[in-house]
Amino acid sequence: MSTFSNVVMKLKLINRPGTLAKVLSVIAREGGSLGAIDLISASPSHVTRELMVKLRDREHLEELIGILEIVPDVEVVSIADRVFLKHTGGKIEIKPRRPVQNWEDLSLIYTPGVAGVSEAIYDKPDMAYKYTMKGNSVAIVTDGSSVLGLGDLGPAPALPVMEGKAILFKRFANIDAFPLCLDVHEPRQIIEAVVACAPAFGGINLEDIAAPKCFEIEEKLSRRLDIPVFHDDQHGTAIVTLAGLINALKVTGRKMADIQLVISGAGAAGVSIIRLLKRAGAQNIIVCDRQGAIARDNLPKHAHKRWIAENTNKQRVHGSLKDVVAGADVFIGVSGPNLLGREDILKMAKNPVVFALANPEPEVSPEDIHDIAGVIATGRSDYPNQVNNALAFPGVFRGALDCHAKNINGEMCLAAAHALAGVVREGQLCAENIMPSVFNDNVANTVAKAVKRVAGRMGVSRVFPNYEKVI
Amino acid sequence: MSTFSNVVMKLKLINRPGTLAKVLSVIAREGGSLGAIDLISASPSHVTRELMVKLRDREHLEELIGILEIVPDVEVVSIADRVFLKHTGGKIEIKPRRPVQNWEDLSLIYTPGVAGVSEAIYDKPDMAYKYTMKGNSVAIVTDGSSVLGLGDLGPAPALPVMEGKAILFKRFANIDAFPLCLDVHEPRQIIEAVVACAPAFGGINLEDIAAPKCFEIEEKLSRRLDIPVFHDDQHGTAIVTLAGLINALKVTGRKMADIQLVISGAGAAGVSIIRLLKRAGAQNIIVCDRQGAIARDNLPKHAHKRWIAENTNKQRVHGSLKDVVAGADVFIGVSGPNLLGREDILKMAKNPVVFALANPEPEVSPEDIHDIAGVIATGRSDYPNQVNNALAFPGVFRGALDCHAKNINGEMCLAAAHALAGVVREGQLCAENIMPSVFNDNVANTVAKAVKRVAGRMGVSRVFPNYEKVI
Repeated sequence: MSTFSNVVMKLKLINRPGTLAKVLSVIAREGGSLGAIDLISASPSHVTRELMVKLRDREHLEELIGILEIVPDVEVVSIADRVFLKHTGGKIEIKPRRPVQNWEDLSLIYTPGVAGVSEAIYDKPDMAYKYTMKGNSVAIVTDGSSVLGLGDLGPAPALPVMEGKAILFKRFANIDAFPLCLDVHEPRQIIEAVVACAPAFGGINLEDIAAPKCFEIEEKLSRRLDIPVFHDDQHGTAIVTLAGLINALKVTGRKMADIQLVISGAGAAGVSIIRLLKRAGAQNIIVCDRQGAIARDNLPKHAHKRWIAENTNKQRVHGSLKDVVAGADVFIGVSGPNLLGREDILKMAKNPVVFALANPEPEVSPEDIHDIAGVIATGRSDYPNQVNNALAFPGVFRGALDCHAKNINGEMCLAAAHALAGVVREGQLCAENIMPSVFNDNVANTVAKAVKRVAGRMGVSRVFPNYEKVI
Repeated sequence: MSTFSNVVMKLKLINRPGTLAKVLSVIAREGGSLGAIDLISASPSHVTRELMVKLRDREHLEELIGILEIVPDVEVVSIADRVFLKHTGGKIEIKPRRPVQNWEDLSLIYTPGVAGVSEAIYDKPDMAYKYTMKGNSVAIVTDGSSVLGLGDLGPAPALPVMEGKAILFKRFANIDAFPLCLDVHEPRQIIEAVVACAPAFGGINLEDIAAPKCFEIEEKLSRRLDIPVFHDDQHGTAIVTLAGLINALKVTGRKMADIQLVISGAGAAGVSIIRLLKRAGAQNIIVCDRQGAIARDNLPKHAHKRWIAENTNKQRVHGSLKDVVAGADVFIGVSGPNLLGREDILKMAKNPVVFALANPEPEVSPEDIHDIAGVIATGRSDYPNQVNNALAFPGVFRGALDCHAKNINGEMCLAAAHALAGVVREGQLCAENIMPSVFNDNVANTVAKAVKRVAGRMGVSRVFPNYEKVI
């Protein structure tokens, strides 16, 4: 997946004009991509510098080092991997919100003061939302059974991903999210562990849990807990996909109720996308798995695929993905690489909408269809219109936590998608700009407000008095 | 427990010399204890101020407010509880260690960069210590079955205490500790939940779990996990008690092997204190529970009390606490309030060492015996010689994490106690100064070094290569 080498080279150069230029020209000639150059130390005789360099892969890196080592006046001190450097010591830390300087502070936040807060929460359990971390905290729960595109790596290898996710929660929505990387794999065990840990959290974000167990886990946890349980790989993806589709339909002049939609992929993301698209008014959806179109006259074994069969493909169309995509207005792929070619997109309706979201290799290469598709979106950051979950989950949880929500339901997801689509203003909306940037500060805020509004309307919020005022 | 009222009074005063003085004299006359006074806003006509005031209890506060409300030129705007203010929004937060500003940062800490770290940990599981939070993180685990002195309040009321504990971990040892307040109560369920959550942690701190289940939980967890499992109410208390005793014996000119020791309390703390004192060389220990001296010719029912019977009281002394304390050199109470009086301490050996650690009311009042005891220690911060667990657990875990320890054993605890005792230098050591302050920066560091040294000697450490250097 990440085969390229992204390194920091520490070099000691003779302090003489032209030495650095010599190094840079070697790197350029060898095809290395140069980033920042830092000065670490300098003396009359030597200069030590750190150079960020990206190379194709490990062998490419070793070639370059081999050449640099024979350049006169240059000494390779060390080479460190930039990704690993950024992960050294872990990526998140736990800090006090307020400084603790002296005995007085300690006596207020710990014994004896804290006893009064414990007793108050014992009397009125909802006070935990106000006087503990619960009100702003989310557990990021995984068993590591479906880590990124890498598969079942287990809980410890999933931890750096969950820490990264915790950073996104904080960076984009000021939420305190903590990784629960569970060393259990049966749905029942995962459910029991999450229920056991739930008191400290205001919400549960399920992450990178394989289908089909993710469906059972989310459903049962939602029933047992009185806080939101949200599987981001399902609903986060669905919200961002719908937001993108809303804007893509505007750009290509279509209406949700009229479009013919083909979805490739009947996993976690696929099922949730179907549910949300139907809620948004989509009428004609055909879903393909590896065997082709799923239809109700040939009911599949898995419960979630049976649900798909019963709720899509009214005309009971049969055939391969390539067959059924012909004539469709919209293709949404949440499956695997290179399933379609230019010839297939040519058979779709004119100016088709193509969301090829498989990562890192899309279902169809954008380069092959850029001149024939109306709108193209992918899951990658190096093409326009990235369908990135970080556009949804921070705002969705922000809204849910702000109103102490008991759950996150389909209407809240629908509102989130419409709000997210609306962040791209009319004047900016075009085929290559249907999605806002994750660094757009309006995103989480706008999504949160929409989620909170619907939660309030549907009775999903909790409201508390202001307890700290004693008079 | 915390019956006093510690409040912030917001007052609006007519801007005229003498108005504040009038308020302060009312507070003084009514017996309120005044802290800081802040100026919030001022105009030509009015001044708004916040006054920190401590009062005996809620009624005392209401009396004072009643009087202030009839003072001319003074308006009581609001009264807020200082403890609750310090807990509002929770006390801890989760932050990125390094700033995340742009796409480049995201691509290194999250996808696609993070995939390489996940794969590396999958190949070499120990790398999780270096490239995830695991290497510096501790789970603070409780079921809330024995919260402070308040009893079985359950997990949510325990949360503010565990957050406070997390702050102590960070403040005193730069450890990232996270509360796992478990909504399960059977030992088996607690054990399963902790095992499930363990991959993200380098250590487990058990906290406020009632005896006797705490013994079973610690023992079984230690066997199932390859990270330290440390019940602070047991071993933390034992380490600090032993450290204090080492210094108290120096002050009163006694030797560990010679002293006659009486312990009141056969709960979690008592058992661990006995084990550690024996390891430190104590020979003559008699332990009392509510029924009096525990002896092997009358074996108790509970396993941990049977262990006490078989490992203490060689002479099979019988009788009440008051009977057996007569003639003893050292009394250590980890039991309940007011079990002994001046007359009992008078019957002990001359210059006895009295550790009356029950909280908030000690086994014997220090005021009653200050002229007849050689050294007195309590669990309270308002007397000299506080036996405070915050002197031990931060350094113990710091040492364990620094060497990626597989467990924390008795020898490491013994080393911690000797190191902690040694922080009080010869010249400073006296009857009223046997314990360092928790704000003494040497404490955690000194304890950590001792723990790490013993861990290394006993093969409890893990050592890893420097993975981020690719060359």
